[in-house]
This record gives sequence, structure tokens and C-alpha cells, in this order.
Amino acid sequence: MEISISELKIRVIQIFQNIGFSEHHSEIISDVLVSAEKRGIPSHGINRIKDYLWLWSNGKLNPSAVIKIIYETPVTTVIDGDNGCGIVVSEYAMQKTIEKAESNYMAFSAVRNSNHYGIAGYYSRMAAEKDMLGISMTNAQPVVAPTFGVERMLGTNPLSVAIPAGKEPCFLADFATVPIARGKVELLEMQNKKVPDLFIQDKNGNVSNDPSALREGGAILPLGGDKEHGSHKGFCLSAIIDIFSAVLSGAEFGPFVSQQTKDVQTKSGSPGKGIGHFFGAIRINAFQPVDVFKSNMDIWISTFRNGNTKEGYSNIVIPGEPERHNEALAEINGIKLDDRIIEQLNNTIKELSLPQVF
Amino acid sequence: MEISISELKIRVIQIFQNIGFSEHHSEIISDVLVSAEKRGIPSHGINRIKDYLWLWSNGKLNPSAVIKIIYETPVTTVIDGDNGCGIVVSEYAMQKTIEKAESNYMAFSAVRNSNHYGIAGYYSRMAAEKDMLGISMTNAQPVVAPTFGVERMLGTNPLSVAIPAGKEPCFLADFATVPIARGKVELLEMQNKKVPDLFIQDKNGNVSNDPSALREGGAILPLGGDKEHGSHKGFCLSAIIDIFSAVLSGAEFGPFVSQQTKDVQTKSGSPGKGIGHFFGAIRINAFQPVDVFKSNMDIWISTFRNGNTKEGYSNIVIPGEPERHNEALAEINGIKLDDRIIEQLNNTIKELSLPQVF
Repeated sequence: MEISISELKIRVIQIFQNIGFSEHHSEIISDVLVSAEKRGIPSHGINRIKDYLWLWSNGKLNPSAVIKIIYETPVTTVIDGDNGCGIVVSEYAMQKTIEKAESNYMAFSAVRNSNHYGIAGYYSRMAAEKDMLGISMTNAQPVVAPTFGVERMLGTNPLSVAIPAGKEPCFLADFATVPIARGKVELLEMQNKKVPDLFIQDKNGNVSNDPSALREGGAILPLGGDKEHGSHKGFCLSAIIDIFSAVLSGAEFGPFVSQQTKDVQTKSGSPGKGIGHFFGAIRINAFQPVDVFKSNMDIWISTFRNGNTKEGYSNIVIPGEPERHNEALAEINGIKLDDRIIEQLNNTIKELSLPQVF
Repeated sequence: MEISISELKIRVIQIFQNIGFSEHHSEIISDVLVSAEKRGIPSHGINRIKDYLWLWSNGKLNPSAVIKIIYETPVTTVIDGDNGCGIVVSEYAMQKTIEKAESNYMAFSAVRNSNHYGIAGYYSRMAAEKDMLGISMTNAQPVVAPTFGVERMLGTNPLSVAIPAGKEPCFLADFATVPIARGKVELLEMQNKKVPDLFIQDKNGNVSNDPSALREGGAILPLGGDKEHGSHKGFCLSAIIDIFSAVLSGAEFGPFVSQQTKDVQTKSGSPGKGIGHFFGAIRINAFQPVDVFKSNMDIWISTFRNGNTKEGYSNIVIPGEPERHNEALAEINGIKLDDRIIEQLNNTIKELSLPQVF
């Protein structure tokens, strides 16, 4: 279906108010999910609502969560999300991080007892809009095997870094530390297609092209693929994100991270609680005048954009550019939602006897 | 040749004193280079001395550099290395970062006008030894093409993160953000071997297995390989390291980074000066009691180490473990230096009419 942004936002707000979220919190959730649709990342948009509803209906997502600061210094905050919606908790955590950075040059926040937080780049960009370097990362339910491993021990653990520029738009890196999302492997299986090399392995740890291998005890590989191609580096990066997000906050880590979708198994036994996130905000003017930095970032961006390309490509893609392009188009044309996603959502809403919204 | 650690340290000190470095600075350089040998990273050990001597003999490395603080706040320091040895500048910068973190919970330093700094992990580990998260990164001479590009625009830009543990040794990630080092491609060419898929491309941007393609206008690929395998994520990571190290400090960035070895061409026109580094130190007890964190890191490490492995592998490798194992062996057995490396070094020393040391 095609829908305007304003109409989509209202309907998403309605869904979350229907399960007990306040109007204000429903607005925040809606803004982040619709923002993913605008940026062309539908895997993290409306598609996610069915999972949030599943969590809620199983007592794994608290609409009335009371977010608490567990420990703080002038530059750090440790936050307990009270098992609330990761988006609400993260918006609060990043606001707090930015506030402290405004007073003390920089700040970091570690969050525990949270849930799936949507697109990592939403929060890092909040800091960049205040002339700060913005950092956002989260751990996630385990679907990735470490190098040499056959067990799912890590999530797709995304990292986002936002860096303000001047005339150029913000540099916005936002990427999962795996070569492929689980949803894309499932799509290939439905379409009877092969998975490219170095994306997944079977239950014995052999690299596989058969998408069903993932369902049958296999795992996604770390960024890089196998050891020969540097997967130990992808594992390092993903492990750092897990430790910053979860060990520093007191959240569940590695194979113990709570399931966030119906179909993923996880282990019990973690010393921590819930999903963990980590946010950072570092003021540019703690290093140099903002206008000097921004004009050098403009040179950095235009230098790379105009680098020589191989045949068939007009320019190097600067991180954040495709998503900004999608966003601009969505503002004009609205959003086109996949009918299957709406059907799945409607089924979940019906099962839970909630009012129909789409 | 085989040599004891103490003897090797003395000889390296001698070389740097011979070209005008103070005894103290020569000791620091020697400690970092020998540390690379001990950890089993000979590409960053004695092998590098010929390059440092080449820089010095061309007026590109200043033994009498006066390191200056250009700008500072209680939690940040911007440092100009006066074109000194990257190792001396970085050891100073990390000490300064740790000092500020001791007073103010955390600190970051951005360094410009420096040179090659050896192994990234040497500096991050300094912070971990003080119960801090240690961060170290640097940009480097351009040898990597961005996704879709044919121009060498980025270095191998390493990232190191050190995280203290309790009974377990420190988690020490230290990796270049590329699948293969330039030196290894050269070695494959000498041996008449193929380069594995997704490591390098030729001058037209086609992925190549022919090692000579790199010399003939080609480039190393970002971590991930090609776009299909996630190389845009490797490009993101490498770009973040370039911006943090160089734009934030006022160093040369991307394709403009000064050459650090005789055989790499770079572009002029950067607004900045010299190689750039970025260091961070974040106190664990800005988030939680150190003993609680460390015991949870012990659980993290043992959980991953004991994860199920595929046939033929006894355990998951924790970042830093192989290097620590090498270090322990080197303490007992000394170092075995590759005769070709010593021969190259001796040739350079002879050409420059310096006293023979090996």
C-alpha cells in the first residue's frame, strides 16, 4: 500500500497507544520506525511492529516502563530501561548523553534491560545535529557464529557514527557487523535462490550457499566471511560492540541475549539483564572550532565522492547518502509498504484481538 | 638470526640514537618495535626500521621533534607531533590521555603531523593496564580503494580496543581494516602464488587473483571485499578512522596522507599536516565497580572461548590471545628474525653510512 508519512505516523502511534504506551512514547516509537521506512530500511520499519507486539503479548516488553539512572558521573550514565521499548529508552539515553556533553565536552551512556532499538543511526544523528560526533551501538539476539565456531554467539550488532559537515550533509555510517541480514537469507530461501559465498555456514561450520542451512542449525558469518578473508576482524568488531553495550551496562551478552523475535533461540545464564546499548556524544569544539572542522569535512566528503570510479559507477557513495536520497523522495511521494508486511502485521493484531489499524 | 629480547632492544636503541634521537625516545621506539616482534607481528617490528630510516634520510622524520599541545580541554588534547617518530608522539599522547581520564573519567586525544606509529595495540593496552577502556587508531598511506572506486584513497587504518578483565588476560582487539596487508601481496608475488578472492583489484576495479595487479595500478579492497560481500561496511569503518584521526586533529587525510615507505605514491593538496592518530581512555569505574566489570569480562571471555567449534578447532580465539601466547614464548626463547629483513636493514644502514648494528 502507498501512504503519506503523516498518515503512517498517526497509524503507528495508534498501535502503540492501543497496547498501553503513552501518547508521547508512542510518538517517539512511531518517529523512529517511520524514519527507517523513509530512509529505505524497511527491515527496521513497520516490519518490526509484529515483533514488538509479540514481545509485549509475552510479557517481554513493558509499555509502562520507568527508566532509571543506576549510576552516573558528569560524563557517564548507566541506565536501566525497565524492559521498556528500546526506542523509548534509547531516545532518552541519547538526550541525556547530549545534555552531559553540552556541559562537559563529551559523554557516554551504557543501557541495560532494554529491547530492540530500531535503526542505530537515528540516535547518532541526534548528536551530529548538535555539532557533536554521535556514536550509537547495540547488541542483538544471537545469530552469528564467531570465527571457528558453530554456535550462534553474537547478534548482527550494528554500529553507527554520525559526523557533522558544513555545506555537505552529515556523514552517517550505520551498519550491521555481518555481511547479510537474517531476513534476507529467509527471502532467498522463499525465492529458491542460492546465498552468495561467505555469508552463512551450516550446522557443522562449513560455508554454505543453501539458505535453508541457516534455519537448520547454521549461523551467519561475521563481516569478512571466513578466517582467510578476515572474519576474525568482523568478530573483533562485533565483540567490542557486545562488550561496550552489555558488559559495561550490565545487560545480557553474547549467546545469552534475550530473543527479540519469535523464531530465535537464546541461552539462559547471563549475569545481566535485557538488551544493551551504548551511546556517545563528543563535541567538535572540544578539538577545534566547529566551522574549521566542518569545512574540512566538506573537503573530505567531496574528495571521496569525486574519487575515480570503475566503469558503470558515477561516484563513490558517501555513508548516509543513499538513505538521505530516499528520505527526500519519501517526503514528496510518501511510503510504499510491502503488502506482505501489512498482512503479517494485521494477522498479529487480529490474533491479539487489538483494533485493526491498517 | 636468533636474538634475546634484551639484546634486540639494545641494538634498536643504538640505531635510533645513531640518527639523533635521544636515549629516552630511542628506548620508547625500541620497546614498541620489539613488542611487535614479541607478539608475532614482524611486519610492524624490525622490518619497519628501514622505512623509518628512509623517512629520516629524506627529511620526513624529525629526531629532535618538539611535541606541542595545540588545544586542550579537561578531557581532550590536540597534539602536533612536529613531524617526529609516530611511536614517540603516540606514547606521549596516550600518557596524556590516561592522565586526563584519571582526573575526569575519560579523555580523547587527536594527533596531527606525526608518522607511522607501529602496532595500534601498544597504546590501547596502556589504558587497559590502568583499568580503563583503551582506544587507539591511526590513518595510513593510501593503498585501499573505496567500494566502486579505482583510486587508492585510504590506508590500512588499524583500530585497537583494549578491555581489562580479571583472572583472564585483557581483551585486546588490534586489526587493520583490510583483508590483507600490502606486504603479504608482495610475498605472494615473489612466491608466484595467487591472491585469494576478494583481497585486491586491478587498475580497472576488477577483483583480481594476480598479485602483480596491486603493483600495476591496483588497490587493496576494504574489509568485506566487494559491495555484495559488505565492502561498503569496511569502507565505512576505515573512513571513520580516517576522519577521527585526521579531520579532528588537522592531519592529512585519505589520498593525501604522506608516504611512509619509498614505494607508495600519494597526492598533495590536503589541508592538514602529517599522519593523524586518535586515542581514547575511559575509566571502567565511570560506569560500575571495576571488580564487578572484570568478573563479568571473565565470564564473557570464558563463554566465548568455550563456544562450540567446528571440527579441527579446539576453541574460539579471543582477541589478543595468540599475540599473548607468542609474547610468553618470546620471553623464554628470544626472537627469530627473518634474515631477509636483517639484510634489507643492513643495506639501508650501509647506504646511509650509519654504523652497522646487526
